[in-house]
Amino acid sequence: MDLDPAALTISSALARIRAGEISAASLTSACRAQIERLDPAINAYICVAGDGVRGAGPAAGALPVPVAVKDLINVAGLPTTAGAPKFFGDRPAEADAFVIEKLRLAGAFILGKTNTHEIALGVTGVNPHFGPVRNPHNLERITGGSSSGSAAAVAAGMAFAALGTDTGGSIRIPASLCGVVGLKPTRGRVSTRGVLPLSWNLDHVGPLTRSVRDAALMLQVLAGYDPLDPASADVPVEDYLIHLEDGVEGWRMAVAAGEYVEAADPEVLAAVGEAVRVFKDNGAQIEKADLPWLSDLAHANARMTQADAAAFHRERLEAHPDWFGEDVRHRLEKGAAATSTEYALARREQAEGRRRFDVFFRKYDALLLPTTPIPAPPIEGTEAIQAARQLTRFTAPFNLTGLPALSVPCGFTQDGLPIGLQIVSRLWAEALVLQAGHAFEQAVELDFRPAFS
Amino acid sequence: MDLDPAALTISSALARIRAGEISAASLTSACRAQIERLDPAINAYICVAGDGVRGAGPAAGALPVPVAVKDLINVAGLPTTAGAPKFFGDRPAEADAFVIEKLRLAGAFILGKTNTHEIALGVTGVNPHFGPVRNPHNLERITGGSSSGSAAAVAAGMAFAALGTDTGGSIRIPASLCGVVGLKPTRGRVSTRGVLPLSWNLDHVGPLTRSVRDAALMLQVLAGYDPLDPASADVPVEDYLIHLEDGVEGWRMAVAAGEYVEAADPEVLAAVGEAVRVFKDNGAQIEKADLPWLSDLAHANARMTQADAAAFHRERLEAHPDWFGEDVRHRLEKGAAATSTEYALARREQAEGRRRFDVFFRKYDALLLPTTPIPAPPIEGTEAIQAARQLTRFTAPFNLTGLPALSVPCGFTQDGLPIGLQIVSRLWAEALVLQAGHAFEQAVELDFRPAFS
Repeated sequence: MDLDPAALTISSALARIRAGEISAASLTSACRAQIERLDPAINAYICVAGDGVRGAGPAAGALPVPVAVKDLINVAGLPTTAGAPKFFGDRPAEADAFVIEKLRLAGAFILGKTNTHEIALGVTGVNPHFGPVRNPHNLERITGGSSSGSAAAVAAGMAFAALGTDTGGSIRIPASLCGVVGLKPTRGRVSTRGVLPLSWNLDHVGPLTRSVRDAALMLQVLAGYDPLDPASADVPVEDYLIHLEDGVEGWRMAVAAGEYVEAADPEVLAAVGEAVRVFKDNGAQIEKADLPWLSDLAHANARMTQADAAAFHRERLEAHPDWFGEDVRHRLEKGAAATSTEYALARREQAEGRRRFDVFFRKYDALLLPTTPIPAPPIEGTEAIQAARQLTRFTAPFNLTGLPALSVPCGFTQDGLPIGLQIVSRLWAEALVLQAGHAFEQAVELDFRPAFS
Repeated sequence: MDLDPAALTISSALARIRAGEISAASLTSACRAQIERLDPAINAYICVAGDGVRGAGPAAGALPVPVAVKDLINVAGLPTTAGAPKFFGDRPAEADAFVIEKLRLAGAFILGKTNTHEIALGVTGVNPHFGPVRNPHNLERITGGSSSGSAAAVAAGMAFAALGTDTGGSIRIPASLCGVVGLKPTRGRVSTRGVLPLSWNLDHVGPLTRSVRDAALMLQVLAGYDPLDPASADVPVEDYLIHLEDGVEGWRMAVAAGEYVEAADPEVLAAVGEAVRVFKDNGAQIEKADLPWLSDLAHANARMTQADAAAFHRERLEAHPDWFGEDVRHRLEKGAAATSTEYALARREQAEGRRRFDVFFRKYDALLLPTTPIPAPPIEGTEAIQAARQLTRFTAPFNLTGLPALSVPCGFTQDGLPIGLQIVSRLWAEALVLQAGHAFEQAVELDFRPAFS
């Protein structure tokens, strides 16, 4: 049977398994064939796992599908390079990360480890050691990052879902640029145990998928309290599927407006504007909201990320600065040179941002804005580096504040590059961002399969 | 009628008001007379308010009693010097702090503003501008701080209750050294709006009183969500009185043991050991718990406090370093010289400490340990300075982790200096620390009135 994995979602595949049309094993073979066919050009995987990685026995769990794992997350038996192979990955990880434990219990098959911006400290996905990941929609374009390989693998059908991490936008940005769904859950919802830290305060783990329903399925498996993770919160895990179909009738939704947002690319703004109309047509009340302080939050997030990363990597930066790529070394050095006063002021911005959004989300059910201000820039030339500075503009505020944020594909540029819509809600309201994302997806039924796959 | 205010608690006074024996106004006159009589020696007040400070009308609220306010907290119409009069207090505050609004609504009378360690950055209460506050139990001894005047005022009957702030122990330490009750609520329970910041991350506002019931009464008034305070949490306020009498039968209580705690003064350890026996006699199960990581938490709290204080006071430190006292200037300079890496590592300790206590308080209802490792040291000589380094040893870990912590008087040294027992519980469990403190107080019925008053 010839399966096109890029044409299936987890839910459609599970339906066909239940109907006896296909086997769980055939999904894995199809992904592996796809990897063999496409990954030489795309470069999404650092390492493809053999059959030994998964435990024996039939696929009996809730999620018997092949998934890819960002190479920042420990999978027992595989090295974790963090995209920095001179420092990491000389030994296989001894234990699974919490999220890998959860995936295995759900019957998932780990396909392999995906390419990442070095130590996750950057958002282009141009890795100096493993090479750039190429956007399945246009191989001369970046995927965005840092979960670059995870987004590309899902977009090109080289996995049914992937795990990413997100400290300033690293799940949502490549999701947006590659035309897939990316969910950054509420900070504390998904354990980061067994994940190489970038920032102890801002790191999140979450899924990249080909549909919002699939993101809900993944979150259902990944979420949960972990007493061994300092960031993990002991809050009830909801059934993220139960209200998925309920729509947005009567919701109060805010659309981010004002200078900071409107500086985005006109094609991006037009696509997001269309998406807003879809919500309106589906019964949501829409209001514009000027949020000029998003800028301060994005800056504070960058400062705190650099400082936390410099603290975590301080011995490596001191011993072998040249083992890092130039861009990452530069960011670490900036972090290391920062004063505690700068850190304290960033912390203050964080507290104030949380307060502002606490008040904001008493009024609104969700906030809509672009995920990235631009579509995928080219890999070659200085544009990618310039662009990288812009890419976290709309995503980083929600790392600093810990709010749940979903990126859903909402259109294409004239050049065929995907555009992402970001849906944000109050703390712990993943159910709401998923419900809104699903409503949008059902209403527009766009096809985001890359021509390439 | 001749009232001895030091012999009354808020609850006994309210009972007498209800019985028609005394008037609310007589409490205020009695406190004022006490201030006139004792404060020249004790130096608890920076400023005593006239009648104009309180709004007109009869004392109709839940708490029609005279209270003192640490001079870090804004009271409209009075200057807020923060103990640093060269920088602050040249104009009366325009608006009440959130907690003052609450007190006024409850009918409280603001007696005046109490002396504090300069900008609250120190725990001796030896203020270079206003002079040291003297311990009502021994005028040659410090009160501890930074809420030094608040503790002394309550101990000596110069107020029925006082507001303090606590960033590393600044409510509990002077409560312990002066033989009064001091409560540091859960971080976020009581708004810090209108309070001069020391650390945006670690500041708490809370009451000092002459009984645990009075602390519960005060907390009932002070607690509540404030959308204008970034630290304020929107969690339900409980009725702190409803279970106050329920005792500790069947509770699982841990007693902090191990080197870090056992380095305390033998008289302190003996008094706390006696207190532990009282809980046992009242039906609690007692287990020893070695918490060697308290040391790391205390150090991280100090580093973060200094860094946050240096960030907040950066312009003052640069413009007029000599306007600060020597000890405070030294701490601010240390904070200003710290790197963001040091801050990031302290933050990491904070997250890890919270995780450890989350796990710990799944097993135990409360933790018992001394409030301070020593009784009040002398004002003169180098001992006070040396001692100050020790005083936050057992209190600071609960600022870093935000846990509710109560100091209750539990005995005296042979020299007649009070000793404090600290009761800590899980986040938001003020009701438990108050219940345990009340059970102890009822069981021992010690008299902590200073001979002096």
